[in-house]
This record gives sequence, structure tokens and C-alpha cells, in this order.
Amino acid sequence: MPDNLTDLITELALANRILGHEGVLDAFGHVSVRHPSDPGRYLLPRSRSPLLIEPDDILEYTLDSEPVKPPKVALYAERVIHGCIYQARSDVMAVCHHHAAAVLPFCVAEKPIVPVFHLGGTIGEEIPFWDQHDEFGDTNLLVVKQEEGRSLARALGQHSVVLMLRHGATVVGRSLKDLVLRSIFICQNAEYQLRAHTLGSASPLYPGEIRQADVLHQQRAGVDRAWEYWSMRLEAAGAMPPRRSSAKAARRSVPKPSRVTPRERRKGRRR
Amino acid sequence: MPDNLTDLITELALANRILGHEGVLDAFGHVSVRHPSDPGRYLLPRSRSPLLIEPDDILEYTLDSEPVKPPKVALYAERVIHGCIYQARSDVMAVCHHHAAAVLPFCVAEKPIVPVFHLGGTIGEEIPFWDQHDEFGDTNLLVVKQEEGRSLARALGQHSVVLMLRHGATVVGRSLKDLVLRSIFICQNAEYQLRAHTLGSASPLYPGEIRQADVLHQQRAGVDRAWEYWSMRLEAAGAMPPRRSSAKAARRSVPKPSRVTPRERRKGRRR
Amino acid sequence: MPDNLTDLITELALANRILGHEGVLDAFGHVSVRHPSDPGRYLLPRSRSPLLIEPDDILEYTLDSEPVKPPKVALYAERVIHGCIYQARSDVMAVCHHHAAAVLPFCVAEKPIVPVFHLGGTIGEEIPFWDQHDEFGDTNLLVVKQEEGRSLARALGQHSVVLMLRHGATVVGRSLKDLVLRSIFICQNAEYQLRAHTLGSASPLYPGEIRQADVLHQQRAGVDRAWEYWSMRLEAAGAMPPRRSSAKAARRSVPKPSRVTPRERRKGRRR
Amino acid sequence: MPDNLTDLITELALANRILGHEGVLDAFGHVSVRHPSDPGRYLLPRSRSPLLIEPDDILEYTLDSEPVKPPKVALYAERVIHGCIYQARSDVMAVCHHHAAAVLPFCVAEKPIVPVFHLGGTIGEEIPFWDQHDEFGDTNLLVVKQEEGRSLARALGQHSVVLMLRHGATVVGRSLKDLVLRSIFICQNAEYQLRAHTLGSASPLYPGEIRQADVLHQQRAGVDRAWEYWSMRLEAAGAMPPRRSSAKAARRSVPKPSRVTPRERRKGRRR
Repeated sequence: MPDNLTDLITELALANRILGHEGVLDAFGHVSVRHPSDPGRYLLPRSRSPLLIEPDDILEYTLDSEPVKPPKVALYAERVIHGCIYQARSDVMAVCHHHAAAVLPFCVAEKPIVPVFHLGGTIGEEIPFWDQHDEFGDTNLLVVKQEEGRSLARALGQHSVVLMLRHGATVVGRSLKDLVLRSIFICQNAEYQLRAHTLGSASPLYPGEIRQADVLHQQRAGVDRAWEYWSMRLEAAGAMPPRRSSAKAARRSVPKPSRVTPRERRKGRRR
Repeated sequence: MPDNLTDLITELALANRILGHEGVLDAFGHVSVRHPSDPGRYLLPRSRSPLLIEPDDILEYTLDSEPVKPPKVALYAERVIHGCIYQARSDVMAVCHHHAAAVLPFCVAEKPIVPVFHLGGTIGEEIPFWDQHDEFGDTNLLVVKQEEGRSLARALGQHSVVLMLRHGATVVGRSLKDLVLRSIFICQNAEYQLRAHTLGSASPLYPGEIRQADVLHQQRAGVDRAWEYWSMRLEAAGAMPPRRSSAKAARRSVPKPSRVTPRERRKGRRR
Repeated sequence: MPDNLTDLITELALANRILGHEGVLDAFGHVSVRHPSDPGRYLLPRSRSPLLIEPDDILEYTLDSEPVKPPKVALYAERVIHGCIYQARSDVMAVCHHHAAAVLPFCVAEKPIVPVFHLGGTIGEEIPFWDQHDEFGDTNLLVVKQEEGRSLARALGQHSVVLMLRHGATVVGRSLKDLVLRSIFICQNAEYQLRAHTLGSASPLYPGEIRQADVLHQQRAGVDRAWEYWSMRLEAAGAMPPRRSSAKAARRSVPKPSRVTPRERRKGRRR
Repeated sequence: MPDNLTDLITELALANRILGHEGVLDAFGHVSVRHPSDPGRYLLPRSRSPLLIEPDDILEYTLDSEPVKPPKVALYAERVIHGCIYQARSDVMAVCHHHAAAVLPFCVAEKPIVPVFHLGGTIGEEIPFWDQHDEFGDTNLLVVKQEEGRSLARALGQHSVVLMLRHGATVVGRSLKDLVLRSIFICQNAEYQLRAHTLGSASPLYPGEIRQADVLHQQRAGVDRAWEYWSMRLEAAGAMPPRRSSAKAARRSVPKPSRVTPRERRKGRRR
């Protein structure tokens, strides 16, 4: 993962578009990455469909999910999903919340997704469920309050994915590319599992296979091959993100003192 | 919703193409909007596939589904669906009749569609069925007579959608954009519900969740985000509607006395 | 249907490409039309995938499925399907043999396709099955002998479609456009029927509805609307057929005495 | 199959892209061909997604799956699949390893794929399963060791395809084009079989039909028609492989003594 802010913003715009183009995200859903030099902040686009995200759309947030600069644009309502997970999991570097068509049937039928093929191993042995109604009763199902975000983060625990009943899924990654792989492979896995179900039953990988398959998919060779493939598909569709506007780029290239509050900084660094 | 006739006609052409491009409409199906200044009229294209509609194709109708000007083009046979619903429901500003692939299995199996995810909440708690055969016996299943249209409008009642057995669905909206959202989300909802069914059973949202999710999707933030996304997809496919021809635009920009009959006017205004 | 040979050849190339583009035909399958002025002949492309067919690829055959001119190109092996049906059914003006993905599951499971929505009415009340193995034992399943073609034509009888077990389907039309509509709508119908089956059961149209729906879909309004739609989609994909090369066109514009044998002519005219 | 190395490399790049474009391969999976003049070698691209393969990416390997020249690029980890099958089966001229979406449900549910339509006949009467866990216990499921490759080759036996539980499939061909046909048709066959299953049951072809259908699909007419179709689709998507860079081509056009070891040569020639 780039440790340079400008490169990471470019990669985040690309990740948004790849996940939009590969059918994980549509008009809704969002992808963030932890700030490369300040673990008490994260980067998330303004409220816009992922396939349209440009580097200029990307804003900085504290882990309380407050924008660092007063925003002139609309923000995602559900950004606490990101902030609360970054607070709870110092190992998480990137977060994606989505309502992918492959995953929704499992969120509706309340049937667990289990890894059924080697690439599915990257999602881990168990994917927990979270039902917003259990703790918060009738809502519009959006995760907008800090306590809702914290409840979701607790349900996620140390797992890679949490399924949100009647809503969607939230996936975390050890890097932005790791997140993109997991988000795409959980969809493929869910699709094959559902179809296997129509043939009879779907047997999961052995626990030892899951662990080894996950290690495998942290290796650069496979990640790079997949990333080149998805980028090429995006480019063939004429959907690559534009470069950052030079004015903004110039402004950002000057390092600035962080405006994060001491409390936010503590939170971010404590984990 | 634009209160200006020219802008609304532009938006209606775009709505037709978005619904065509997103898989709700194909060669058949149609979308109308109530006239912005005369509630006793509505706007509906001439008989043409929705993905091809241009502003110049859009005609004015009275609520008896008669064209205001003698038409030189073929008209949709089923326009009474629109007129009868505008007569029965003064709160309805836009109507879409379709045979979407996601919805048809439910019209064939006579299984109710229920909201199973938050975006599905916009379709309401219950979707009634209508069987043309019950009241009219053997027909070609097209809704072409006033009494057929009125019967369908009665079945719709105060709901957002009515499923027409062995035929398709009719959706209504509080605005054109509200209609487009509902039409697309009912298809996503039906798809997830059917697939959840193959895994076991599909649990609907709680009634309170449905009400709150519907309120949510009347807010501008989500509507605008989705509209930008669908428009971008249409543009990327090179399928944006052309502008209205200037001759016609010039002609229309001159306000004209309404040719609606007193009886039609009464009907339109009474509700 | 054009009664002019050149226009009909143009329409046949277009019909091939529409059916290729709409997913009815892929690398295989073929579409023919009866000769506009000589009922004892039919027009069918040389052996080539339908989406690639150009007017110059189209050849004339006698009803014994012999090319009228000595061919310099490879011919479809299964052309007897066309000849034998034109011999048996004087009302049939166009024939399509295909292995569409929507229809194959029914040919594999030996489950009847029944019309389940109004556009499906055009396929008629009953679709018979034909099992080549019953009469001919082990074959490669291609219909290449006259007796195989005649057996298939007998199974078709007066119906619109015959399902060929473990192989595909053959559809007939009262015109080329009627054939294209039926071929596309049987695929949609099969898709909805299969999916309705996963929800419970699929109820067919009432017999009277089927008859009236079929009459409806012979009317020009719907046919023209659908044809414009499919043509537009083909054009948007950059896949419209090229015009006939002028040399060939010049040669063909000179009327020539038919080389059909008296026996073939009798056959063609007798029905 | 071209017996000229340059032409075969061009065909191999094209085969990779066709299988990528037709949905058999995605970011992963790979296709190889036996060397046209040295049966003790095979050609396989460097580690890259199949839809991106260019002639310059293609490397020579011994049957021990060692690159003939010291590689400057990353290699596929699972190349022993190819080498071990070429060692075990002298009749095999091309190999494809894939994780196609149509086939995976059968690898997950452990249900056999059987030929259910005439084009499916090309996959043969029986497709064996292989479970890496049986012999090797917990692995990451990649086939990377010689003994894993040999075990897989034993499971394949004299068949055309072997299904790898929780992983994917490996297909072999009598030529590169034969391999491409089989790889695509097994996916179509699996899709129809799964869908037939939702309607009831899927009856396979009669054994005699399978044998005759396989003979049929070795004939040039059908192969050429399908190849033209897939190439056209690839070209329409702007995805044809570039030509080989002239520098490399020049270098390769000079025949060179083989650097294969005597042991490798023996292996390759012995079979």
C-alpha cells in the first residue's frame, strides 16, 4: 500500500471504481482507507456513487467520522461504519460497506456464507451476522449513529466480514488491495455457494485449508495479477478515474499540521 | 420534480431511457408523468421502446387517456393504465408499467413480493395482485379499456405497486425520480427474494423498518446519488436522449390555452 | 414481409444478427426464410455464425435442401430441418433452429414449456417434444438426413415450436419478423417459467388468453416497436450487417429461370 | 493446429483471450499448448491474467515445468498441472486450468457433470473428481508440487476433464482449438445441467450419442465456425492480442538447439 498520501488517494479512487465495475458496489456502498501517516484519520469520498469517484472527491476524517476540514459537499450518512471499525481494529487498513447482489440473499435468508473454494478462503472460517433490530429496534437500517457503528464493529470482532441482516455486508482489509480482493471473492464465493445449494449441499474448505488459502492471498503475485486484470477491465470500459486537479494536488502536496484533536489522535494511536 | 414543462419532458425522456438501460423495461413497457401545471393531464411518449424515447416523442393526454392534440403517430394501447391511476390517486405524479424479468416469476407463481432489504422498503409493506381474468375473462391480457384500467387502479389502492398476474407490474411514484427508484429497487428486491428462497426462506423487513426506509428514500441525498449513477451509466453507453428539436421547442414555448374538455378538467382537479 | 428478393435477403441477414445479439443463437443455430416468389425454395446463409451473416452469405435452396447453385462455400449440415418443415407446412414462411440457454434446461429435464405471460402466448398452447433417439437410435444428435428432418417436422405438427431433447429447439413463423418475436419470447417465457418454478409452481395462461395473445402479436404495432428496439441495440453494438456487395447485387437483380426440378416445384406449391 | 512455432504462439495468445472473454477464465487460470516440434516441451504464458496475454508473454517449459530460459518475469505457480499432464498423456496437445463460475458449483457440491446436450458430448461420458486433501491433507489448494501434479494427472486418467474439489477444473484437448471448444462447452453444459436440476432431473446423453457427438466436434466445419465467432466477439470488444514485438520475433525466428536435458527429452519422447 502506498505510504504517500497522493498515491494512496489515487489508489482509493481506483479501488472505488474497480468495486463499482466488478458488481460489488452500485449507486450505493463506499470504500475507505486509513490515512497512511496518521492512524487516527481515514480517507473516504464525498457522497457519490463509487464508479464516479475522482481523487478530488476524497476527504479526510477523524476516527469519530468528522471531516477534518469543513465540508462543502454532501457526506455519506453511514461513515461511522468506517470510523468505528478503524477505532476497534488497529490491524484494519481499509473498509468497504456494500449491498452486493451475490451477498444479499444470505442477508435475507440468514444463512451463513462459508468459504467453498480456495479464493473464498480469504474471507476466513466464519462470517458473523449483525441484526440492527436486536439492539436498536425499528430503524431505516442505515448505520448512522456512533453506537450503531460500535455495535457493528463489535459484531465484526476479529473477522474479515460481517453480514448485516436485511441490509448488506461490511468487509475489512489489511490493505486497500487486500480489501478489494476480499470484497470481490466473497461475492464469487457466495454465488457458487448458492448455486451449489441448488445441486445439494455446499461443503466448506477444511479449517487448515482456509488458513493456508488466506496466507496465499496476501502474497503479491496473485494480488498484482488480479489488480492488473480489474484495472484493464475498467480501462476497457473507459472508466478509469481522472487525475487529481493540479490546484488541489498542489495544495495537498504541502504538508500540513494535523487538525486532529488530541483525543482522536490518542484513539488512533492506541490501537 | 421540475415544474417547468420543457424540463419535465427532458426528465421524462431520461427516465424512460434509464429504466430501459437498467433492465426494468425492454421493447415494451412505458413511463408517464403528471402534467406539472395541469393535474388533469399527463405526459406519455408515443408508442416506442423506452430506450429510444426522445423529448419530441412525448405527447399530452387527458385523464381519459385521449391525446390532447390529434396524433400523427401510433399511441401505446395500454395508456388507460396511466389515466385511470392519475384519476384515482391525486398523490401519484408518475406511473411505470413494465414486465421486468426480476418481477415476472412472482406474477407467474403468484407469490407475493415483500421488502427484504432496506432499499426494498420503498415499495411498501404489501404489494397486491390483480388478475385481469377475474373480472374480464379471456383477454389478450393488455389493459386497454377504461373499465380494465379502473379495475387495476382499484387493485392498486393506496399501494406503491400492483402485480398483474401472467403479465407484469405497475408502479407509481410521488415524483418521476421516486418512480424510477421504486421501479429499479423492486426489481433488485425481487431478485434477492427469489434467490433467498433457494437458500431457505426470505424474511421481510419489520413494518416499522419499512416505514422508516421509505421516508429515507424520499430524501434528496440518496435520490441524487442514484440518479447521477444511472445517468452516468446511460451516458457511458452512448444512450442519452437527444435534445428536443428547436422547431418543436419553439412551438411549445408559447403557452397555449388548454384543449381539455370541461369534463376532463373536472376529473383531473377533483382529485 | 418484403416480397422483393433483395429486401428479404437484407432482412434475413438482420434477423440472423438480431437473434445472435439477443442471445437466442450463438456460434451455432440458423435462420431461414421461404423464397418470396417461389414457395418451392428457401433462403439460408452458408455455414457461419448468425451474428456474422452478411447478405452475400445467403444462398437459395430447393425444399430438398439442395443448393440451387453449386456452392463454393461450406453449408449448414442441418439444413434439412428447414427444407422438411417448408415441405410439410405451407403456412410457414420462416424457420429458426437454436440451442438457446433459456430453453436448453427444458430439453434436458424433459419438462414442457408453457406460456406463462402474455408475450409467451405467441408460442401457442402446447410445445411438443421430439427425441431423435426414439426413431434413429444413437446419433451425434444433428438432424442431417431427410428422414430425420421429416420426423422432426411430423413432431412439430401444426405447432409453433418443437423441443428437441438433449439438443435444442426449432421455431417457425408466419413471417420472418413473427419468427424473430417468437424465438425471443419463447426464451423469455422459459426463463420466467424456470424461475417461477423455484418459487413454487408456474401457472400457464388460460387457453382463451393464449389464442388472443397470439392474435395480438401478429399486429404491426407491437412487431414494429420490438423490431426497432432490437435493431437499435444491434446498431449500438456496432453489429449491423454490411450491405450486399454491388457486384453480387447486380448479378442477382437480373431475374433468372428457376432451376428447381418439377418435383420440387410440385412439392413447394402443393402446400 | 499450426506446426510453426510463431503461428502457434499467436494462436495460444488468442486462445487465452477467447477463454478470458467467454467467461471461462478471469484474473486466474491458464492455458498451455505442447511445443509443435518438441513433444518434451510446452508453451505457457508468464504469470498474467489470460485476457491480457500477448505473444511476447509466452515462455517455453520442459515437462518438469522448468522454464527453458532463465525467466525475468513471474511464472504461474501451478504450472506443474500442465507439465505432469503432458508427461502422462502423449495424446494431449493443450491444457487449460480454470475456476469457471459455471463449473464451481459442481466442485463445491461434489455432484458430477454429465453431458446433457450434443455439444456437451465433447467432454466425454465421465468426468472424475480429484480431492487434493485426500492425499496431501491441508494445503492452500494450489497444485504446485510435482507429486500434486502427478496425482491430478492420475485422477484425470484418459478423460477429458477432471473436477478439482473446492478449487476448479482442468481440461485437456487434442489441439488448442479442441481445448477451447471443450472448455467453453463444459461450462455451457454445466449451466444447463444445474438449471435442469431446478426443474427436476437432468438426463445425460446415451453413451453412443456421447461418442458420436465427440467425433462430430473434431470436424473442422464446426470448430472453424465457432472459432470465427469467438474471435469476432473478442475483436468487437477491442481485445485482440497485439502482434509479437519484431525484436523478439526476429530472435525467435532463428532456430536454436534445444536446451532440454537428455532426461527431459526422453520423457517427452517416450510418450
